[in-house]
Amino acid sequence: MSEPFSAETYFATQGKPASLDAEVRRVREFVRRQRDAGRNVVLVTSGGTTVPLEVNVVRFLDNFSAGTRGATSAEYFLKAGYAVIFMHRQFSLQPFSRHYSHSTNPFLDLLEVVPAAASNTAADADATAKTTSGNAAADAASTASSDAPSADATAKTTSSNAASTAPTTPTTSTISVTPSSLPHLTLVLSTYKSVQAAGTLLTLTFVTVNDYLWMLRAVSKEMSAVLGRRGLWYLAAAVSDFYVPGGRMSEHKIQSGKGSLLIEMDQVPKILKTMVDEWADEGYIVSFKLETDPALLIPKAHAALERYGHQVVIGNDLNRRKFEVVFVERAGAAQAGESEAVAGSAGGAEAEAPAGKAGAGSVGAAGKADIAGSVGAAAGKEEPKFIDKWLRIDLAANPEREIEEDIVGELVRQHAKWIRDGEV
Amino acid sequence: MSEPFSAETYFATQGKPASLDAEVRRVREFVRRQRDAGRNVVLVTSGGTTVPLEVNVVRFLDNFSAGTRGATSAEYFLKAGYAVIFMHRQFSLQPFSRHYSHSTNPFLDLLEVVPAAASNTAADADATAKTTSGNAAADAASTASSDAPSADATAKTTSSNAASTAPTTPTTSTISVTPSSLPHLTLVLSTYKSVQAAGTLLTLTFVTVNDYLWMLRAVSKEMSAVLGRRGLWYLAAAVSDFYVPGGRMSEHKIQSGKGSLLIEMDQVPKILKTMVDEWADEGYIVSFKLETDPALLIPKAHAALERYGHQVVIGNDLNRRKFEVVFVERAGAAQAGESEAVAGSAGGAEAEAPAGKAGAGSVGAAGKADIAGSVGAAAGKEEPKFIDKWLRIDLAANPEREIEEDIVGELVRQHAKWIRDGEV
Repeated sequence: MSEPFSAETYFATQGKPASLDAEVRRVREFVRRQRDAGRNVVLVTSGGTTVPLEVNVVRFLDNFSAGTRGATSAEYFLKAGYAVIFMHRQFSLQPFSRHYSHSTNPFLDLLEVVPAAASNTAADADATAKTTSGNAAADAASTASSDAPSADATAKTTSSNAASTAPTTPTTSTISVTPSSLPHLTLVLSTYKSVQAAGTLLTLTFVTVNDYLWMLRAVSKEMSAVLGRRGLWYLAAAVSDFYVPGGRMSEHKIQSGKGSLLIEMDQVPKILKTMVDEWADEGYIVSFKLETDPALLIPKAHAALERYGHQVVIGNDLNRRKFEVVFVERAGAAQAGESEAVAGSAGGAEAEAPAGKAGAGSVGAAGKADIAGSVGAAAGKEEPKFIDKWLRIDLAANPEREIEEDIVGELVRQHAKWIRDGEV
Repeated sequence: MSEPFSAETYFATQGKPASLDAEVRRVREFVRRQRDAGRNVVLVTSGGTTVPLEVNVVRFLDNFSAGTRGATSAEYFLKAGYAVIFMHRQFSLQPFSRHYSHSTNPFLDLLEVVPAAASNTAADADATAKTTSGNAAADAASTASSDAPSADATAKTTSSNAASTAPTTPTTSTISVTPSSLPHLTLVLSTYKSVQAAGTLLTLTFVTVNDYLWMLRAVSKEMSAVLGRRGLWYLAAAVSDFYVPGGRMSEHKIQSGKGSLLIEMDQVPKILKTMVDEWADEGYIVSFKLETDPALLIPKAHAALERYGHQVVIGNDLNRRKFEVVFVERAGAAQAGESEAVAGSAGGAEAEAPAGKAGAGSVGAAGKADIAGSVGAAAGKEEPKFIDKWLRIDLAANPEREIEEDIVGELVRQHAKWIRDGEV
């Protein structure tokens, strides 16, 4: 049992990822270009982090996260005119491609081979295979692919030539999208291509919790320096609370055959506090809290907000997160930022009064509470310390709806106010 | 520190996955159909297994595996005329789609929207967006997607109607494949469609090590009962050696804030032994051994073969597995199966002599060693106990080559011999 590291000690003792400097240069260029274009920038973190148990990694601890929340939200931020730095776990879902990822909607099932009249390539073999059935089809199947690697190599050579001479007129077979998939794919693809053309999406990748922490610090500093209040932090990644310090990792794959396995992990430093104080002191910072025990969700969200002093905690329950989240903010302090003593309609909530077990300190700020209505009738002698605003959608009535659209919509409004308040 | 469970105790105490019975019915139908069609069947397991630390899973231990070995091998087995049961970790790579998965080759980058003349849908908005650039393009981008959800809903309705009336003539915009990607995609897609038409690929999904163990047992029994020696087991999944027994799991997300985290895990029973003895006693069984310490690879492969009594261990080093593997078999016993006392050219190797720490016992079998030549000059007074056959490819000279093609080719030959030997 060792004391949790401070953020400072963590970065002083845990190795910096080799590719970080190159990534930071990409971020710097991106952020400046967006600022010059007058865009707000959101950092969306997404997916889980790993904690390697071995230096040559075979085993690792992971956090549950396919990256749906982050990838979906990134699309809605782009739609709202934001530039997005999408910092995600390798192989987790990404904006746009998420619609056709994994087993649910495999993209090969959207496509068909259309053999051209003059074609004598693989597409013909396929057409032949389709006219047969049963056992014969199986043979045809293996025939169709029996010279795949060599045909492939040839095809690749051919295609690079073709691309340089007549890029838009393939003379052999073509591939078409199945009619039923075409409208949706057209929409997704068009949006994707537009975003690419506009250059408003930058994708960064992490794997381990160490990658994540180093990258988050570096990206935050770049954003903060250039964007001030126009930067939004949307920290949806599922970050491990524990890690195995570099020096204590097993060099090679941990061997079984010696009975049970005992793993001891240290606590990851609570970098959100350092982030609020040092790396992104003007930014609008949204963190997420995922729990499986409903009774813990609100108390832990309150404690996080008090402890770290950022703007919003979005709480969600593992089993209800697709249709219900809760926005937790300090009462009165909501959206008013760092400007102290701006008493608003909520009447100067005691944002600094100690409550809960968390060792707060950096909270500050009371202000206009234009969303205080959602607190209900609690306003009386005792001022509410936090505002919990539930956001629910009816998936039964509208199964296509994505709650991220509402989450992003609300945050865009709050961030706009945050920016205005900073200009006063 | 508790004694490792036997396989029997494991299944008696750890819960059966809810969907297992339905999966088994699919497997039963598949296996019988393939037998009737005269095909051999290979079970390919692929990807890593998780070990949940909580009942409501947020954290889990995982094994490194994208599933490349299994997904690639499955394609080559299909090509060789096998029917394939592809039992893989959810979201790990799959045959065919693997070529365009993840960040390396995202499929949306292969496609282009081609607006039709009469089109007044999203494709036109896209075309407009493309003619602009810089800041204007960004605005166009958000415009193009600004009514995405509603347009999407409309599009979906339209398309189902269109599909039932004129499925092959979309009247609005179309999507085409970029010319440079067309040849390769045509080949992959044609093969995929042929396999679908032939019905020779059955995909099963697992997540946890418990899912995996239950499924492996059930599928093995189904295969074994129907196929006898015509079943091949290709156990490429990276299965955890440790697990947290159901009764000892935390109900909810483990809370941080209490210092370090201590995890104690039990050993997973060595089910390969039970499999060889009980679930698949006539099958040809290939297991994999992945190590990061080169010095351990061969000794551990030998120990596994001796301990479990199956046919082949394919050993690979984490950093060399793309171009080098080693086939480890019992000398003399190679390919001869369970028939005892068939002394072959290798001279009746002492397959039952105790060696290593592993508690063997079920090994048996000595026979024709038509691949003993690869042992080298070790044949003298002391007979070699194992044959280690290295298989290497030259990726520098041929970067497109996949070592799985050679692995599968070798196994198909050995399995054919195994079947012939069983017919004598």
